[in-house]
Parts: sequence; C-alpha cells; structure tokens
Amino acid sequence: METRDHNNPQEGPTSSSGRRATVEDNHLLIKAVQTEDVDLVQQLLEGGANVNFQEKEGGWTPLHNAVQMDREDIVELLLRYDADPVLRKKNGATPFIVAAIVGNVKLLELFLSKGADVNECDFYGFTAFMEAAVYGNVKALKFLYERGANVNLRRKTKEDQERLRKGGATALMDAAKEGHVEVLKILLDEMGADVNACDNMGRNALIHALLSSHNRDVEAITHLLLDHGADVNVRGERGKTPLILAVENKHLGLVKRLLKQEHIEINDTDSDGKTALLLAVELKLKDIAQLLCDCGASTDCGDLVMIARRNYDHSLVKLLLSHGAEEHFHPPAEDWKPQSSHWGAALKDLHRIYRPMIGKLKFFIDEKYKIADTSEGGIYLGFYEKQEVAVKTFCEGSPRARQEVSCLQSSRENSHLVTFYGSESHRGHLFVCVTLCEQTLEACLEVHRGEDVENEEDEFARNVLSSIFKAVQELHLSCAYTHQDLQPQNILIGTWMQLETIILSKLSQEQKTKYRMFSFIDSKNAVHLADFDKSIKWTGDPQEVKRDLEDLGRLVLYVVKKGSISFEELKAQSNEEVVQLSPDEETKDLIHHLFHPGEHVRDCLGDLLGHPFFWTWESRYRTLRNVGNESDIKTRKHKSEILKLLQPGPSEHSVSFDKWTTKINADVMKKMNEFYKKSGNFYQNTVGDLLKFIRNLGEHIDEEKHKKMKLKIGDPSQYFQKTFPDLVIYVYTKLQNTEYRKHFPQTHSSNKPQCDGAGGTSRLASPGC
Amino acid sequence: METRDHNNPQEGPTSSSGRRATVEDNHLLIKAVQTEDVDLVQQLLEGGANVNFQEKEGGWTPLHNAVQMDREDIVELLLRYDADPVLRKKNGATPFIVAAIVGNVKLLELFLSKGADVNECDFYGFTAFMEAAVYGNVKALKFLYERGANVNLRRKTKEDQERLRKGGATALMDAAKEGHVEVLKILLDEMGADVNACDNMGRNALIHALLSSHNRDVEAITHLLLDHGADVNVRGERGKTPLILAVENKHLGLVKRLLKQEHIEINDTDSDGKTALLLAVELKLKDIAQLLCDCGASTDCGDLVMIARRNYDHSLVKLLLSHGAEEHFHPPAEDWKPQSSHWGAALKDLHRIYRPMIGKLKFFIDEKYKIADTSEGGIYLGFYEKQEVAVKTFCEGSPRARQEVSCLQSSRENSHLVTFYGSESHRGHLFVCVTLCEQTLEACLEVHRGEDVENEEDEFARNVLSSIFKAVQELHLSCAYTHQDLQPQNILIGTWMQLETIILSKLSQEQKTKYRMFSFIDSKNAVHLADFDKSIKWTGDPQEVKRDLEDLGRLVLYVVKKGSISFEELKAQSNEEVVQLSPDEETKDLIHHLFHPGEHVRDCLGDLLGHPFFWTWESRYRTLRNVGNESDIKTRKHKSEILKLLQPGPSEHSVSFDKWTTKINADVMKKMNEFYKKSGNFYQNTVGDLLKFIRNLGEHIDEEKHKKMKLKIGDPSQYFQKTFPDLVIYVYTKLQNTEYRKHFPQTHSSNKPQCDGAGGTSRLASPGC
Repeated sequence: METRDHNNPQEGPTSSSGRRATVEDNHLLIKAVQTEDVDLVQQLLEGGANVNFQEKEGGWTPLHNAVQMDREDIVELLLRYDADPVLRKKNGATPFIVAAIVGNVKLLELFLSKGADVNECDFYGFTAFMEAAVYGNVKALKFLYERGANVNLRRKTKEDQERLRKGGATALMDAAKEGHVEVLKILLDEMGADVNACDNMGRNALIHALLSSHNRDVEAITHLLLDHGADVNVRGERGKTPLILAVENKHLGLVKRLLKQEHIEINDTDSDGKTALLLAVELKLKDIAQLLCDCGASTDCGDLVMIARRNYDHSLVKLLLSHGAEEHFHPPAEDWKPQSSHWGAALKDLHRIYRPMIGKLKFFIDEKYKIADTSEGGIYLGFYEKQEVAVKTFCEGSPRARQEVSCLQSSRENSHLVTFYGSESHRGHLFVCVTLCEQTLEACLEVHRGEDVENEEDEFARNVLSSIFKAVQELHLSCAYTHQDLQPQNILIGTWMQLETIILSKLSQEQKTKYRMFSFIDSKNAVHLADFDKSIKWTGDPQEVKRDLEDLGRLVLYVVKKGSISFEELKAQSNEEVVQLSPDEETKDLIHHLFHPGEHVRDCLGDLLGHPFFWTWESRYRTLRNVGNESDIKTRKHKSEILKLLQPGPSEHSVSFDKWTTKINADVMKKMNEFYKKSGNFYQNTVGDLLKFIRNLGEHIDEEKHKKMKLKIGDPSQYFQKTFPDLVIYVYTKLQNTEYRKHFPQTHSSNKPQCDGAGGTSRLASPGC
Repeated sequence: METRDHNNPQEGPTSSSGRRATVEDNHLLIKAVQTEDVDLVQQLLEGGANVNFQEKEGGWTPLHNAVQMDREDIVELLLRYDADPVLRKKNGATPFIVAAIVGNVKLLELFLSKGADVNECDFYGFTAFMEAAVYGNVKALKFLYERGANVNLRRKTKEDQERLRKGGATALMDAAKEGHVEVLKILLDEMGADVNACDNMGRNALIHALLSSHNRDVEAITHLLLDHGADVNVRGERGKTPLILAVENKHLGLVKRLLKQEHIEINDTDSDGKTALLLAVELKLKDIAQLLCDCGASTDCGDLVMIARRNYDHSLVKLLLSHGAEEHFHPPAEDWKPQSSHWGAALKDLHRIYRPMIGKLKFFIDEKYKIADTSEGGIYLGFYEKQEVAVKTFCEGSPRARQEVSCLQSSRENSHLVTFYGSESHRGHLFVCVTLCEQTLEACLEVHRGEDVENEEDEFARNVLSSIFKAVQELHLSCAYTHQDLQPQNILIGTWMQLETIILSKLSQEQKTKYRMFSFIDSKNAVHLADFDKSIKWTGDPQEVKRDLEDLGRLVLYVVKKGSISFEELKAQSNEEVVQLSPDEETKDLIHHLFHPGEHVRDCLGDLLGHPFFWTWESRYRTLRNVGNESDIKTRKHKSEILKLLQPGPSEHSVSFDKWTTKINADVMKKMNEFYKKSGNFYQNTVGDLLKFIRNLGEHIDEEKHKKMKLKIGDPSQYFQKTFPDLVIYVYTKLQNTEYRKHFPQTHSSNKPQCDGAGGTSRLASPGC
C-alpha cells in the first residue's frame, strides 16, 4: 500500500536542534498524543519525530490517536506538521472514519476538506456513516447524511470473509444490533433506510436486533422495525426465526407483538427442528407457551408433555394435553450400538435416557454409570459429541484438575496416551472426557493369570510393556511431563487389545501364528496411559524422571508376574529386592537398567525399548545366528575384534554356556561335528564357536536330511533360549556399543512404530532364512 | 431396597373379573393417572393392575404421578387400593416430597398422617421443605415449618458427589437462586434461616442469588440478604466475589449497594486474576468503572487503558488515566516458543497480539495468518486451548461443515488423520481446529523434486505412501467413512517428517544408515490425512470406496514421480494411461491393483500394504534369498511344489530373467559356478536356480575370500533389483497365496504399526544374516 511509504520508522529528519530523532521519539510522540500532552507533542515534532509514524500492531499514526482522543487542537497541530490526513490504519480505517466513531462533527468536516471521501470504507467495508450508527452518534450520522453518505450501503468485506458469508450489513443493522433507538428511528423515518436489507447471511435488521440478547431496548427497536414493515419470516444463525429468538430471549411482549403480524409462521422450526412452542416448554416459559397454544401453535413437535412433567409443571402438562399434545411413552428405539463391549449395556441405557446436556457432554453422575472412584468424585461413562468417552470429575480449579488438563492439552498428538476429547466446566465442576477403554491393566491381568506356562514366551507382557514404555517416553520427551503416579490402575486396555487377548487365548500355537499372519486388527490403540492428575511439567530435575522409571521397573515385574504380586507389595520392596524377583535374565537386566538409568535419564527409555526383553524369541535366535555368520567367527580369525569382545571376563565363568558342547544334545552335537571330520576343526567350548554352531544349525536344520536333528531339539529358538538363558543378554551386553549392534533387531530407536508391541512384535523377526 | 418388593411387573393379582392383569395394564394405569382419567384408573385397579408398579426409567408409581398432577381424588383412590404411601422413586423422592414440589398442603398433611417424616429427604438430600423453597410454594413452606421442618438443614448427598463438593445447600440458597423473594423474606424474617450458611463449595445464599443471572428479582434478593448481614467476601465458582458477579451481571444498582458494605474488598481478584474494575472495563461498562474508580479501586490491574482504547472509548481512557492507570506500551515479552518451524514467525505474532477469545480459540481471519483458501473461507493459524492448531472456517450448518465435523468426531482415536482439537461456533460460523502441519504433500514434493537419481530406492515415496494407505484404510475400516477428495493438498506433512526429510537430504548414504540406527525422531505423526468436508459415511456402495482407491492410484504415481506430473493432469488421464506411466514394475503392479480391487474392496488396502512396493530393497533381496534357501530349490527337487509354482507360464518368457546366467557379471558367474565344478551341477537358466544363486551369493559374499566379487557387483540388493527389475513382483505374484508367503517380510497385516513407513521401513529388513 502506498501509505506505507510514509512510515520510515528508522529515523526522522534532522531537527532544527541538530539532533536526529530516533524511533524512540516516534513512540514517545504517539504516547504524548494518547496522554494529551500537547507541549510534549509540539516538542517532539520540533525535534523531528516522524509525524506519520505508524505503530507496528495496528498501524495507528499520531493523527489516528489524536482523533480517537477527540482532541481537535492536537489534530490541527499534527496537520500543521504535515500529518497525512488520509493515511490508513492496518484495518484500513482513515482518520475520517475514526472521527465518526468518536462522533466529532468538526473533525469529520475537517477531514472532508482534506480529501476524505464521505463513503470511504475500511478493509472490512465500514464507512464513517456505519460507525456513527454503531456508536450511536446521532449528530455525526446526520452530518454525514447531509454530506451525501450512502444510507443503504452494504459492507463489502475481504474475499475470504465473503466466502464465510461475512459482510453485507448496513448501518440500520448496526443500529438495531447495538440498540440505538434514536439512530434507528432517524434512519427509518428521515433517511430512507431499507428495513428489509439483508446481510450476506440473509439476516435483516430485525434478526440483528433480536440476536443481541443483552440489548435493553430490544422491544422498542423491534416495534419500530415491525412498524416499518420488517419481514418476520427471515432466519438468523441456526435457522432461527424472529419468533424463536423472542422465545429464547424469554420476552413475552415481543412474542405477543410478533404473533400479531399477519404473515407469521408460528410452527417454523430452527435447524435443530425445534419450534417456538417446544423451546418455550424447554425453557419453562409457561406464559409464552400458553400464548403460543392460544394462537394455534401445533403441539405435535417433540415430547412436550414429557418435558413439562420432568420440570414438575403440572399446569403446563394440563395445558398441553388440553391442546392435543400426546404422551410419548415409548420413544422409537433408535438403531444405535455401543462400540465398547465391556460397557455396552450401561452405554445403551445412558444413550436412551434423557439427560440435560452440559455443553457437548451427556452423562450422569450415578452408580450405574460409574467406572471408578477418584479423590474428586469419580470416572463415569458419557457421550462427548455423541462419542463414547470416560468422564473424570474434578472440582474446577483444583490442583489435580489443572494438572490433568494441562498434561492432556499438551499431549493431544501422542497416540499412546488416552485421547483427550474435551472438557466441560459446569457450576464449579470440571468434566474431563477421554478415551473409554475396556479395562485397567490390573483387571486384564486377572484374566491372564495362570493361563500361560512358566518359562514360555510371554508375548502379552512384551506387548503391554512396550506400549507402556512408549507412552511414558512420549510423555517425557514430546510433552515434557512426568507422570508421577504410574501404577496398574492408570494403564488402560483398549478394545482391540482386549479382543486380541481373548482371541489369542483360545488358539493353539499354530493357529496363533496363522492368526498373526492374516489378522487385520489394528493394535496401535492397544494400551493407553491415563490419569495425569499428579503429572508435573518437567522442571529439569532428574529425580522426577527417576521416580517414573522406578515405578516402571515395578510395573515390568508386575506384568511379567501377571499381577500375582500386588503393586502395593512391590512398592514396599527395595529396588534390589525387586530386581531379584525377576524370573529371567532379560527381565532382571531390564529392571536393573530402569533403576540405574545413568546420566541421560530422559533418553533411557528409548534405549531400553531396544533391549532384548522386547525381542521375540525368534529374533533373539536370529540375532545369535547373525553374529555367528560373521566371517571372523566362522574362520576363528586370530586377533579378531569381535572374538575379543565376546571373550568372557575373569569373573564371568559361571555362565550357562561355559562348556556348552556338553550341554547340547549329544546326537545333535555329533551330527554337527561330522561336517568338520576331515579338517578336524570340531566345535570348541568358546562363545564364538557356540554362535557359529547356532548359525550353522539354523541355516540347515530345515533341510530334509536334517529332519532327525529337528525332531530332537524341536524349535531351535526355544531350544537355545532354554538351554542358555543368559546367552542373549551376554551377547547384547558385549556388543551393544559396537558396530556389531547392526545384527540386533533394528528396533533400537524404538519409538519408531515398527517395533510397536501389541500382537505384532513377533513379526519383527525376519522370515525364515 | 425394600421398596422394590412392591414392584412385580410381571403380573398383578387375579382380578375380580377373573382376568389376570398384564404389564400392559400397569403401564396403562400410569398413563391413566397422568391423563387424569379417573374412571380408567378405577377400572384398571379393579382389573388387578399393580397399584405399586414403578416405571423403569425413574421409578415413578401411579401415586407419584397422581401427586405430581395435583389430584387429591386420584391419590385417595390409589391409597384405597393399597398404594404404598412412602415408596421412593429412583432418585429417592417420596410422594410427600413430590407434594412439596407441587405445593399441595392437603397432600402434605395426608402423607404425614400416613407415616412420612417431615425431614425425610431423597438420595441427593432434598427435603420437602427445600422443594417448597425451590418452587416458591409459600403455603407449603409455612405448613412444613409449623410441622417442625428443619429450616437450616444442609443437603447430604451421595458420597461421590460430596467428593466433587456437591451438596450442603440449604432452603435459603434455593430460594435465593430461584429468585423467590417472598419465600426468602419468610425464611429470613420468620423462620430464622442462617443467612451465612455455606454449601460444600463455600457459597452462601448471596453467591447463589448472583449466579442466577436471569433472575429478575436479583436486586430485591440481594438487598434482603445484605440487610440480614450476608457476608460479602465469600467466593463462588472461579473465585468470583459478589462484587465481581454484580459487575458481570452489568448491574449498576447492585454494584452501588455492595460498595456501601463496610467490609467489601474492592480489589479482590477472581481465579483468573481479574478485579471488578478490569471486568467492568472489558465489558465496556463505563458507569460501573467510574463508580469503582470513585470508590478507590486500584487501576493497577491489567491493561485497562489499552482495553478502553481498543473499544474506542476515549472518555473511559481519560477517566482511567486520571485515576492513575498506566499506558502499557511494551507488555513483557513472554518466553514462548512456537513448535512449528514453518509457521513460527506468524505464530509468534499471533501469540503476542490481542484477540478476543472465541470459546477456547484465539485466532484472526487475516491474510497474515492464512494457511490456505477454501470454498467457505480459509484455513488459518490459531491457538486452541493454547495449543498451535490449523483453524478451518465454515458457514455453520453447511453440508461441508457437517461432513467435516462428523468425520473428525468419529475418528478421534485414529492416528493417521489430523487430530481433532475441537470446534467453536460463533455468529453463524463454525471454526474447526485440527493439527497444525508443516506443509502439504504438494509443497513437500517440490523440495524433493530432482533431488534423487532415477532408478534409486525412493524411501520418501514409500514412507509417505504407506502412511497415506494406512490413513485411508483407517478411515474406511475404523471410521466407516470414505474421503472422496484424496489429493496432494489434503495430505499434510508433520513437523517430524519434514525435519527428517531435511536431515536425510543433507546426509551421505552411510550417514543416513547411521542416523536411522540411532535417531530418536518419532515418525508416527509423519503424514496426516486432512480435509473431510466431502467425506461420506460408508453406505455399503463399493463405488464410494473405489473412488478413493482410484484417487490413491493417481497419488501413488504423483508421489513416485515427485509431483512432476500435476495431480490435475493425472485426474484427466484414463486408469490405463496412469498404469502405463509407472516407472517400475512394483509401482505398476500396485496401481493396477488399486484400479482393480476385486470383490472385497474394503480389505484391499490392508492387502496392498504388504505389496512389494512397500518393501525396502534390502528386504526384497532378503525375500529372494529366503525363497532360494528352500530345501527343494537348493536340491532342484523333482515334482517340487514350489518349483512348479515358480515355473513361468507360456506367455511369460519376455521376463528380464529369461536366460539370467548370461546377464550376471561373467566373472561372478564363473566364480559362483566353481563351487559345483566337481559335481558338474552348474547354475541353469531356471527361476529356481536364479533364486538359489541369489541365496548362495548372499550368504557368503561378505566373507573375506569373496572380496573381489563384492567389488564387481557392489551392493547385491541393488544389483539384483536393477538387473532383474521384474523378479520380485514375479516371485510375489507366484507365491502370494501359498504357504511360501512366510518368506515375505511380515508386513502383510499391514495396519500393524511395525511396518509403519516414515524413516523406518528399511529396518524391517532382517539384519545381515
């Protein structure tokens, strides 16, 4: 815009005193105008301050400010110092338009003489005439009219605003909306304003008047508009007619007046399908309901009688019945099915019954719909925007409420936490709506307990814990919160996880494998972390993270033990005791690392998601084979780096694979040694040779000639896991910080989805090769 | 509850007429009472209908209904037929309590004589006396008082409600809240009600009166309460004092009266830190602001002057300045950093400036903050609950608005669509807030174009497309919607994806590999599907899904070609033409399947996510090696099933691997054949032998003795992909419906997260083995 040229904020001209005006001076000039300090204004102008300086935010010049302060003397002073009289603010308003807001006729006159156009408008289409109407400035309005202002101009706003159907309003609508009776009267009686002009949303001045519910003069204005022939069958937002708006305003007088109009459509509905009568009954407006009935409003518009009964208004019930309203005993059963199976019956019930809406939420604080108790009430079933949710109640403004909401708001993009639907505050309470899950981890484990056999691969534990680790990691890293209350009640199991758990529990091993290969169940929402009312924004104190990690350590044991040791019991034990309770080497090592996270506590979980605990038995086996396929190991290379790395230390000879050749099935050992019978290079009791052995066996055991061997050892991945339970952790520990980690399952940067747990981890293993 | 014993809905006793009353009769009895049909009531009772029948929903008996209808005659009739006079509804209300709601003294007296306790209450703690106060029934109130009702009883509600601090209110608070002046007067003057009793939230009757803003008698009630010594320094919800509530009610008279109280704290703030004066200025209440200033309210409470200026109220500005208010030119710069880098500068600006809140949303419909134009306005930057969002504008109630919101509401649990934060409706507009992404796919591809070399592995395309496939699959399956407008503008790239793209573009191949192994960037939110304003709820018509699939086919080509052919151009081409434009066999086959989805159109995407297009080159190579390791192939077994399956059909001899031995580097071929020089079993030109060749080469090429061979062919996965570009698709097609699919990368049920694309697919490949 050309006007920008006036604005050189860097420096003003050199003043008579020889000092250069600074940007600071320009700001001071504006401030001096705002505080009406004429002397200072004069002084700054003399000092060379830029008279056309525009502040950054709204583009106000000293002149705009002087007009706004209604100070003709300062305006004249600025003009004498060459202030541009037609410069626009950022919203396009000129000093002339601002003068109409203030209602200063002298200034209006002055700016007209300085080149303003009486119909000039800002970028939203507001003219001086409209502003005079908005602010109820009668004298300015009359003056502008005399000078030729266009009374019925409709606002022409920006293009994208017009696509939103903004714009198109007239001065009459402004006066009606703001409740300026006198302006309205003049516009209609003296200036020929079009009473039925409509804005771009199709609303006339009558609608505008009725939409301003706080407007105390709404009755006078409505009468004026109706007297001048305003159309009573236009519609405002949500399809509301003037009659409906009058009912919503609870204004008996207006309803009366509107019902006297010849063309009134008494049974028109708004876009929710509600008539004026239905709204009157809902709002308990007996007088208005009576009036509407008397004027012939149809009573066939919703459950009128039931609503009146609910409000204990028996006289209204009688009135409605006498006007033909029907009792609706059995509202048509809707074809609605709950998504949750666990809460299905209660949800169906809640869906059916009437409950007053709290914003977008329908729920009922009642035993029947309670999921759990909490310290500030409970968690209940509900519908938020018609979706099934869990509703947690709080006393509004309580520390717990603040912590819960602040954490949920910061973590909307994270998929391992419960989804935050929204919250409603109502009479001092806050209702927080999140994903409705099927059950807590605690309840879920009860089903699982005693189901699996000791020492078998526990896929469920691995999946659940990997989800939990990822959830906590997300919370720590992306949201920068710590949970501070990790425990089985705060870990929820989603619909799919529960379904998959049930399915898997019913299948044989072979069927499970098949199921996993073809199943379409999406497990991403398997496990959700919930309950953030003790969570705290990360302050940088590693203790906060450590507390979460220690709880996680106990959760690992809790899940691995299928809840057979209660979490409270585990909380009462020392870290060392917990570690010792681990049933296997992988668990023990994992928990140990949670209790001793090292320096970078916040990165700890990412590292640990790559821990062998999370590898399937198949991929543990695959890792051993990969390492065994290293050229150095195959050839027992002298001075090989990897062989050196794998060498046990002096204190490491109590490992299960010490003298490993004696622990392998003797027939298999013999058969495998046959290959080397010419060279005499039989397998030796080194870690390297064990890995080579595992590699060779793995590569060839599926060949037909090795059928017998396979019969003897069964599934090799299980065989090696059970024969050498500490081998995987040993190899992992030795190689984890070396280039040979390339042989590990590529789940290291494990917040990557592909290592997502639930029902799928086993697929990480490379297919048989 | 004992009362339930009365309720046997299955059957009533045998009537005198010999007919057994049915459940239907019981319902009819209630209806007859409700419609006051005394004869029918009598008849049904005679017929044996259950006089104590309770309807399921609220537990209402005929007696409760008769009381509610204020019909003493029917009540007496029912009692004659042994209606239980103290039976409770589900909320615990007895007929006695209902009589107080209706205000019928005769009935109250009757039920007292039948055993009702004057202070009995329902399960929420409401007594008859309280109900009389709520409904303004003066006579009933006086009667109950005479009969010994406890005037100052505080409601004792259920335990979980008490934890929410519900309950504790008295009859006085009820009368104050409902605006019953006469009741209030009697309670205070004649019955000794405690004016300063507080409910469990600490609110006294004064707060209750002021909280009911629609209460027309609020002034009279406030005066009465103050005259009786009500404490003016209690607080209601959000810490609001009576003075603050009076200002919010815009009630000058009340403010005046409150300011006359001796102990009033004029500068108290609510829990948002706002004083009465600040609120008055915000609400443009000049009279009240003046009054507060005159009474000594501090002007040091927020940006008073700026707010008044914003409202163009220069006289208020002057008033405030004269009472010592300061201009705040430079509000302290908050330490706030945007999350989005692409929109960072504009977000910072928007964060800084003042904008009126629309519910939980702060935004500005202005070019500066515009992300894109739409047919109903545009998409703008915004803050929803202080989180960065994209705000899409709509005309409220338009079909597009309905479709967008309905789809977003149903898909909150899905992670590949943009996250739905919430929506605000305002003056006929609807503002829908979703995840703010960095850029569209279109813009993102512009950066990528020409960057990679033809015929190289295109990880970006694979990642983006796998995300898109999963998003569409989720939409179809979990949400049961179809998109109907899939195109590059509606696919958004998240912060991380963009960052990763930039990082990867700056790294060498080796660095990339390393980066991927150690990176912690979470790619789950890599790509988001957006814009659901044309989406439709799945009706069962396969055409709807097919339309999405055809668009997807074009999107595949668009992405693979890095946007070098515009999407519009592709839309103009026939399916066949699009297929023919594919640069490689995998793409061609994938697009072909999208255009010919077969019968189960909705499952199609799940299947296709396991298509070789989505396999890394490394895992394609691994698959070929796995198949080549099959015992039958290694031994060229006669009548082998897999060898039969892999046999080319009569029309398949134009494949690249026809006579494959001649296409392999001659030295390498020779070297590989050396192994068989004794047996003479050299490699032959069959598919089986090619796969065996690939397996053997793969297993040993990393050994030191094969260094030369490695130098000749380079990376084997690339070598085979380029030498036999149709081999993978060939093997896939032949084996996909057989047990040998076990050798494919286990990504078949590919909505499983572990095959998630972005930045991670390459890790699916089993590590070198």
